[in-house]
Amino acid sequence: MKKTLRAVTASVAFLCSNAAIAEPKNIIYMIGDGMGPAYTSAYRYYIDDPKTKHVDNTIFDEILVGMAHTYPDDDTVVTDSAAGATALSTATKSYNGAIAVDTKKAPLKTMLEIAKEKGMVTALIATSQINHATPASFAAHNESRRNYDQIADDYVDNKIAGKLPVDLLLGGGTQYFKRDDRNLVKEFTDAGYQYADSLSDLHKLTQIPALGLFAPKGLPYAIDEHPNRLEQMTKKALSLLDSNKDNGFFVMIEGSQIDWCGHANDIACAMREMHDFAQSIKLAKAYVDKNPDTLLVITADHSTGGLTLGANGKYLWLRDVVKGVSASASILTKQMMASDDLEKLWSQYTQLPYNKATAILLKEAKSGGEKALKKVIKQIINKASYTGWTTGGHTAIDVQVFAHGKGYEKFIGSQNNTEIAEKLISYIK
Amino acid sequence: MKKTLRAVTASVAFLCSNAAIAEPKNIIYMIGDGMGPAYTSAYRYYIDDPKTKHVDNTIFDEILVGMAHTYPDDDTVVTDSAAGATALSTATKSYNGAIAVDTKKAPLKTMLEIAKEKGMVTALIATSQINHATPASFAAHNESRRNYDQIADDYVDNKIAGKLPVDLLLGGGTQYFKRDDRNLVKEFTDAGYQYADSLSDLHKLTQIPALGLFAPKGLPYAIDEHPNRLEQMTKKALSLLDSNKDNGFFVMIEGSQIDWCGHANDIACAMREMHDFAQSIKLAKAYVDKNPDTLLVITADHSTGGLTLGANGKYLWLRDVVKGVSASASILTKQMMASDDLEKLWSQYTQLPYNKATAILLKEAKSGGEKALKKVIKQIINKASYTGWTTGGHTAIDVQVFAHGKGYEKFIGSQNNTEIAEKLISYIK
Repeated sequence: MKKTLRAVTASVAFLCSNAAIAEPKNIIYMIGDGMGPAYTSAYRYYIDDPKTKHVDNTIFDEILVGMAHTYPDDDTVVTDSAAGATALSTATKSYNGAIAVDTKKAPLKTMLEIAKEKGMVTALIATSQINHATPASFAAHNESRRNYDQIADDYVDNKIAGKLPVDLLLGGGTQYFKRDDRNLVKEFTDAGYQYADSLSDLHKLTQIPALGLFAPKGLPYAIDEHPNRLEQMTKKALSLLDSNKDNGFFVMIEGSQIDWCGHANDIACAMREMHDFAQSIKLAKAYVDKNPDTLLVITADHSTGGLTLGANGKYLWLRDVVKGVSASASILTKQMMASDDLEKLWSQYTQLPYNKATAILLKEAKSGGEKALKKVIKQIINKASYTGWTTGGHTAIDVQVFAHGKGYEKFIGSQNNTEIAEKLISYIK
Repeated sequence: MKKTLRAVTASVAFLCSNAAIAEPKNIIYMIGDGMGPAYTSAYRYYIDDPKTKHVDNTIFDEILVGMAHTYPDDDTVVTDSAAGATALSTATKSYNGAIAVDTKKAPLKTMLEIAKEKGMVTALIATSQINHATPASFAAHNESRRNYDQIADDYVDNKIAGKLPVDLLLGGGTQYFKRDDRNLVKEFTDAGYQYADSLSDLHKLTQIPALGLFAPKGLPYAIDEHPNRLEQMTKKALSLLDSNKDNGFFVMIEGSQIDWCGHANDIACAMREMHDFAQSIKLAKAYVDKNPDTLLVITADHSTGGLTLGANGKYLWLRDVVKGVSASASILTKQMMASDDLEKLWSQYTQLPYNKATAILLKEAKSGGEKALKKVIKQIINKASYTGWTTGGHTAIDVQVFAHGKGYEKFIGSQNNTEIAEKLISYIK
């Protein structure tokens, strides 16, 4: 009861002595791509300490304030990440595929651009390539999310008051930034940006402006490599931003690959992404607690995969099965395609028995090729854990809204995704 | 933005002039059985006026304040309706199947019993039999939800200060109340209760105490008969309670069959149940607006079926397909089993084409019997509308919490289902 009263008592303490809701100086905007409500529920049970009877609250439970509607600007009801991010960055709904352009493909001003115009320091952090749909919709404009090269170009060409739009970029994407036709990395460094191309060199970024590109496209899955890469990037970003906050800062931090694991219907992969995102949120919340002039808002663009805990009539979800899986289905498949010892790999990367049925399923699938094998590996894990999925795409369920810090009261309740952007823009303007 | 600020401004206006959150005199507690977040999202798109570009907010959007965790008191993570209702009525988690008893099968005091002890008028309203798991967990105690006769007996035998525990009961269940071994209806009328056994006689209930049993077990689905029977019962209940509110009242109103349609994976059936529930909520909210000493709290016990909007990779949900279906799969199946003209029935009850593929599917399924035919009817409708399901059972996704009226502020944020009960009990005590 204490926790849920927090929202009210905190807001009342403030509001009783002020006529209007206070405006934050700094904004930390976090987007869990594909993170529908089933993901945060699943994460609570996944991460819970099995030794205690009580199920502990997660960082999400501490700061939940509402939900948001995600439909795009057409009759499909189901949004993609580009239309979702465009709504969340510009307060305007558009068509699926749109990168900060309206239905007539005209550019829409983004909250990052407004922040930059106002003299705030701006940053984009993602585990995908940094020119992927969600970060792209904050600092680029394109009729199609697929035009990755043009979007990367925008990060240099889309000048705001003569300057590059984003002061700090951390994510993947070297293949789009170092191309035969244009070397954007050189253009960034010529413009005074520090540059790092490896996570292990993250510490070498010591000041803003800076660019970090840590993979050709997206970073590897958390479950396969660098389980806390978003947490590391978030820590670095907050540290650099904190030294440049005289005029305030705006940062968008995306847990990009929750969505990718959802598309793959890979529950173990998704839970590791949720953990990296949750740890990053903890850092952001701690920053707000130390810097009460900062607002943290977190949401998702949509839910992915139609994930359910419990499936096929059984009233059960076996988190231990999920916890026991230590590689993405993608990596496990690759290793199994290259090895004759399926049993060894199965036992190494899952805690599930390698019984006769499993052996037959895996061997038969392998003879059908990589795609067939990957499908069967996921089927076995989903079935054993009672994890359900309905699609390799997105769904239209409302997503959650979390907020903490100065001005969070505006986000209480049910709202359109465009309203989240409107409220944030009202704080930036 | 206005709407989401409502919560804050309303609470602030009150709280600035009072030290603590105000205590409501009357409590309207509504439970959408099985109504996970996908159901309220679906309902928004289902009910939206297609002639306007904007998607209108629903009654749910107007009063959303938080979410709740539904896991039962074991390691299954997925609750049933009995454990869910027990948590929501007693503030104690128990095992699946428990009717207001703890894990040792000892009775747990319910909020309805506390209300009755305090001299408040009490009521239970449901579209299921009134001795079904959810209402049962407010006024009966049993080790198993399946002991329907014993639970019905409790509604007479479970005396509070010498009186029957519930002053007004409306729902189904004559087969449990008029039995060869015991005629509970007679015992109710002997105790001074008015009695009606048909919805068309609802107007004959003119005072409390009263009992209305309108079907042998549950009432027919809203899509098949009496589309607004919960709305009618809610209107009657609020009218009778309003005349008996000197010491306050407590009423639990359940949209019971959202869950049943979910178990059946029947989306058209589920949306009609959602509509009847939503219309009932509108009445409750209007009552609160007229009687500001009343608190309305709405939640679900769990989500059913693993419903998703969008399925099988397509970014689309076709509400018009769902709107075009005008019978439950159950009734359509029965009619098709009894007729040779499948095309006529298909065209009468769905707006989907009766093409060659559909004709073959239906005819082949019919030759396999009623169960096979029902399954295929639902498969065609789900596929055509891009509706996904993962189970005939429940899932563990968090459910939403809605609140309006005096003292609603306590329900803002994320909470355990037991905390909802704790907060309500704190208002009753």
